[in-house]
Amino acid sequence: MPQHTVAVLVGSLRAASWSRKTAEALATLAQDLRFVFVEIGDLAFYDEDLEKDDVPEPWSRFRNQIRSADAVLLVTPEYNRSVPGVLKNAIDVGSRPYGKSVLAGKPAAIMSVSPGALGGFGANHHLRQMATFLDMPMLQQPEMYIGGAAKLLNGEGDFADVKTRALFQRFADAFAAWIERHQGASVRS
Amino acid sequence: MPQHTVAVLVGSLRAASWSRKTAEALATLAQDLRFVFVEIGDLAFYDEDLEKDDVPEPWSRFRNQIRSADAVLLVTPEYNRSVPGVLKNAIDVGSRPYGKSVLAGKPAAIMSVSPGALGGFGANHHLRQMATFLDMPMLQQPEMYIGGAAKLLNGEGDFADVKTRALFQRFADAFAAWIERHQGASVRS
Amino acid sequence: MPQHTVAVLVGSLRAASWSRKTAEALATLAQDLRFVFVEIGDLAFYDEDLEKDDVPEPWSRFRNQIRSADAVLLVTPEYNRSVPGVLKNAIDVGSRPYGKSVLAGKPAAIMSVSPGALGGFGANHHLRQMATFLDMPMLQQPEMYIGGAAKLLNGEGDFADVKTRALFQRFADAFAAWIERHQGASVRS
Amino acid sequence: MPQHTVAVLVGSLRAASWSRKTAEALATLAQDLRFVFVEIGDLAFYDEDLEKDDVPEPWSRFRNQIRSADAVLLVTPEYNRSVPGVLKNAIDVGSRPYGKSVLAGKPAAIMSVSPGALGGFGANHHLRQMATFLDMPMLQQPEMYIGGAAKLLNGEGDFADVKTRALFQRFADAFAAWIERHQGASVRS
Repeated sequence: MPQHTVAVLVGSLRAASWSRKTAEALATLAQDLRFVFVEIGDLAFYDEDLEKDDVPEPWSRFRNQIRSADAVLLVTPEYNRSVPGVLKNAIDVGSRPYGKSVLAGKPAAIMSVSPGALGGFGANHHLRQMATFLDMPMLQQPEMYIGGAAKLLNGEGDFADVKTRALFQRFADAFAAWIERHQGASVRS
Repeated sequence: MPQHTVAVLVGSLRAASWSRKTAEALATLAQDLRFVFVEIGDLAFYDEDLEKDDVPEPWSRFRNQIRSADAVLLVTPEYNRSVPGVLKNAIDVGSRPYGKSVLAGKPAAIMSVSPGALGGFGANHHLRQMATFLDMPMLQQPEMYIGGAAKLLNGEGDFADVKTRALFQRFADAFAAWIERHQGASVRS
Repeated sequence: MPQHTVAVLVGSLRAASWSRKTAEALATLAQDLRFVFVEIGDLAFYDEDLEKDDVPEPWSRFRNQIRSADAVLLVTPEYNRSVPGVLKNAIDVGSRPYGKSVLAGKPAAIMSVSPGALGGFGANHHLRQMATFLDMPMLQQPEMYIGGAAKLLNGEGDFADVKTRALFQRFADAFAAWIERHQGASVRS
Repeated sequence: MPQHTVAVLVGSLRAASWSRKTAEALATLAQDLRFVFVEIGDLAFYDEDLEKDDVPEPWSRFRNQIRSADAVLLVTPEYNRSVPGVLKNAIDVGSRPYGKSVLAGKPAAIMSVSPGALGGFGANHHLRQMATFLDMPMLQQPEMYIGGAAKLLNGEGDFADVKTRALFQRFADAFAAWIERHQGASVRS
């Protein structure tokens, strides 16, 4: 199986983001995948008027990074029972202009990460609703509603317990198989 | 490509159901698929206590029908911005007992049908949220929010206009390809 | 403040339902409210054809019980990330025939109850989407995603710890105030 | 009835935004309400790290504008079946820092506006899910899924037909009554 490139979008900008740390820990388990963390904090808010002339450079850079990836991984906290604005904006930028979405057809997976018990369920499923429109084949199981984020990793950034590690390993393996299954299917139906 | 069997669940019980008529019209376009309309109106409400002894006969019959299908098509009106109780109950029955879901791994598609403009968007996405837990790979595009159901078909039950017919043909073709892609993937990840 | 009557709909039929036990424990804290548990397990699936002649007796009984209540409390487990079919069907029956919904304008609250960590978030918000269409003013806070249901109550059916009890007390008080605020507002806008 | 101030947040930044035009047309019908359009396009993405020192000036300005309003109106297009990033970010900024949300307790209403048939249903209900957490009493009816936005207004920015105008008038009146009903209720329950 060839090594596939996964564009990773992290929904939190703060330096000590649980989402980012969790994504980094997952990366160590995903041998068949090459994770590329894509910057989204510098993207101007989507505004169709900006498509008319030269688009903002970060938009072009972001679109190119997604275009060259085989798959997309969304890792996010939940803000107000939904997706953080910064991540939603990145998706909006990637999806446009009309008919030229760089997200269309890319196999995808979601991991929502929260210090609380609910594990970002609300953000997770709002992303899934978007993925339908975006025509991104979405991995269903294992669902990753990661709660208790503060105790997830040890001081070295590894998973603190064996059972959790096994869940993340299953997720990494399932995602790799999902990507493999969906290669060459990116023509919009 | 072999002909795949699709279990069709219709969310409306009334005799003149738009959903059923629309599903029947779709069936004529889906040459690579064999549609089996599965009765759901005779299923007792899901109650875990009923699993203890002999389960209700319609539950067994329903579970067997789903088990022997290659894929599942959900066709439904929207009741109160969500899925009709009768369809949700069928899904509940199919998903249990724990660890023995007959729905797990079955590729699936959704068509929501409404006489109004909104095309059952709310029911459509509530079903998609369920499909995540159920581990059913879900066709994303074309999204089928079918509004104006009263004018969809002509007196012979055919699509009244060419453009609509083409949309349904694309849906049938995309679903057939989706089923083909997901054969043999039904082991829960 | 007069004592208001609350129709309680429980989304689980099994004898040892966590949802029912939790609702019963809440009832002891709600001094300003009179809880009436309304049977929903005997309602035929909603089918518009059945409205034409004499409607099923349980439908009439159910509609009368809701009509005579001042408010509605929905207490439910989550089945497949959504509302159990039996509860959704009750809502469908209450909402019809068109223009004669007995639910319209009734102030409402939701409590989702689960043995797991996620607390029925998915079912909770699917009910909220329905409430919009149903024109039921919905209590927002405190949100009641009740996880760990197996440890919630002690052998006497009381809340096992003080902090949890305080949350339920706040919920009962907030709901009573919400009902009071919305009396006489039931004319559909 | 005193004239209440409504902070209006528009989810589209483009100059010819249908959402903005529709909100402006609504304003002419809402005699009991004073609409204040609040800028959201200059808000930095929410990042908790920015709360540590002097917060960005636009954040302070925005929070003050919401704080001094009696109610909030959200008017938005749908991007990718959800809320545009720019509007979601504004909500994130308003909701923080923890315990100091300026949105808590504000009565609110939503209008989703789209050139297509679906009327922004997906964005509308994602906002409603947020409003639960934010403890914003949310007007339920009339639901405003405004499709066909291109034909909604005439050359003078007035509603093009009488029936549509009547719907918007009912919405304005219901919102005014909702605000009146919820004055002084903003203490978080």
